[in-house]
Amino acid sequence: MSATDRIWTAALLVIGDEILSGRTHDKNIAQVASWLQVQGIRLTEVRVVSDGMDAIAQAVNALRSTYDYLFTTGGIGPTHDDITVDAVAQALGVPVVIHPEARAILEDYYKHREGGLTDARLRMARVPEGAELIPNRMSGAPGIRHGSIFMMAGVPTICAQMLDALTGTLEGGVPLISETVGGWIKESEVADLLRAVEAAHEGVQIGSYPFFREGRIGANFVIRSTSRDTLDACMAALCEGLTELGLDYTPGGI
Amino acid sequence: MSATDRIWTAALLVIGDEILSGRTHDKNIAQVASWLQVQGIRLTEVRVVSDGMDAIAQAVNALRSTYDYLFTTGGIGPTHDDITVDAVAQALGVPVVIHPEARAILEDYYKHREGGLTDARLRMARVPEGAELIPNRMSGAPGIRHGSIFMMAGVPTICAQMLDALTGTLEGGVPLISETVGGWIKESEVADLLRAVEAAHEGVQIGSYPFFREGRIGANFVIRSTSRDTLDACMAALCEGLTELGLDYTPGGI
Repeated sequence: MSATDRIWTAALLVIGDEILSGRTHDKNIAQVASWLQVQGIRLTEVRVVSDGMDAIAQAVNALRSTYDYLFTTGGIGPTHDDITVDAVAQALGVPVVIHPEARAILEDYYKHREGGLTDARLRMARVPEGAELIPNRMSGAPGIRHGSIFMMAGVPTICAQMLDALTGTLEGGVPLISETVGGWIKESEVADLLRAVEAAHEGVQIGSYPFFREGRIGANFVIRSTSRDTLDACMAALCEGLTELGLDYTPGGI
Repeated sequence: MSATDRIWTAALLVIGDEILSGRTHDKNIAQVASWLQVQGIRLTEVRVVSDGMDAIAQAVNALRSTYDYLFTTGGIGPTHDDITVDAVAQALGVPVVIHPEARAILEDYYKHREGGLTDARLRMARVPEGAELIPNRMSGAPGIRHGSIFMMAGVPTICAQMLDALTGTLEGGVPLISETVGGWIKESEVADLLRAVEAAHEGVQIGSYPFFREGRIGANFVIRSTSRDTLDACMAALCEGLTELGLDYTPGGI
């Protein structure tokens, strides 16, 4: 394996009772996953835990020791249930400190806003000792980076801003690229074909994703590889196989 | 703690590269979470792992030993990347067998369908030895229960059918009930109020869920408790506090 073949991995820890209660549909998993793809980093595991110190700290330690990068979303706001910073500090065995630059950002942001920089708002300047800030133009309160751990906002639009600020700054490998083909096809009709085509193309994975839509059963087949040539050859073989089975398909998926 | 206060917990293991690649937005977390709420069971952790034997088996063993119930979604179809049954069997240390009843269901389902019961389709009758079936009227292929582990389909509509078949059959505790109040309120304005109201009402949790919508910042505050009386008292205290701060709010949330 050459240096450029090195696979970089990441985990995402979603912090929030609102996801576990079913009240809120998570949007950050897909958003962080797509962004990581572009950085050449593979999202390999996601965990969702409740707003509890031990639950968060335990997951942080398990994930940061297993993957190259750990992203967290949620729990960095000003309220009593925002305890991500405390839990990460506990996991790392470092104290929580006020980051002077974060304090300055918040002082500036709240200077002309009603109420000013209250104690609650100043909570958003707290970081595990040794952390840097991740800029966030939208709400003033920055994200936080501590080594390989990135603490992001839970609000998807703010999380997106923070991801944007990190674009191109993380070391990654060759991005995994993909091609999709789909149709009103029962996956059980093509199971043998998928297996054979995957086996014939080294370094390729084919995923089969069935769905039930408009009262009909269909599936999309996603081919993934780090090589454009292999991907194209595999896609051609799969489409040829579908044609031989007399099945209609749509490149790009349906 | 009386017998009725016993808290029942569950974990959900989402199996699927399509979620980790960002290609598909997961719908099963919220669906399983909401369904568990009604059964009086708390979803306490979610993990998303890739379609790999070891990744699945390791997560299965970690989660089934920690929580009362473990639900999995995905990877029980007929294609080569459907390995949930094999991974759960590996985790449990039991062989994979063809379940005679599942075979009969599939034989019947495919009797008059094109292609009949192929080897690929028969894969859907494989279960970890000792398992029972979870009915699924939609596509024939059943879900699988093995002790406290419930293997469900990844397609959300089929997963919903399987959940429906399980409704009322799992032992649970007193359901956690909730009330929501929201407004175009910056959560930093009410952080002290939320903390004080939560502290004054035993057994209550208040979650603060900010959002950015239509160019404005707002938040919903969700009060959770197993007691209706405590919940109502806490809701009244919170609304009174919001009024005292001169803030507009909407019961039910915005």
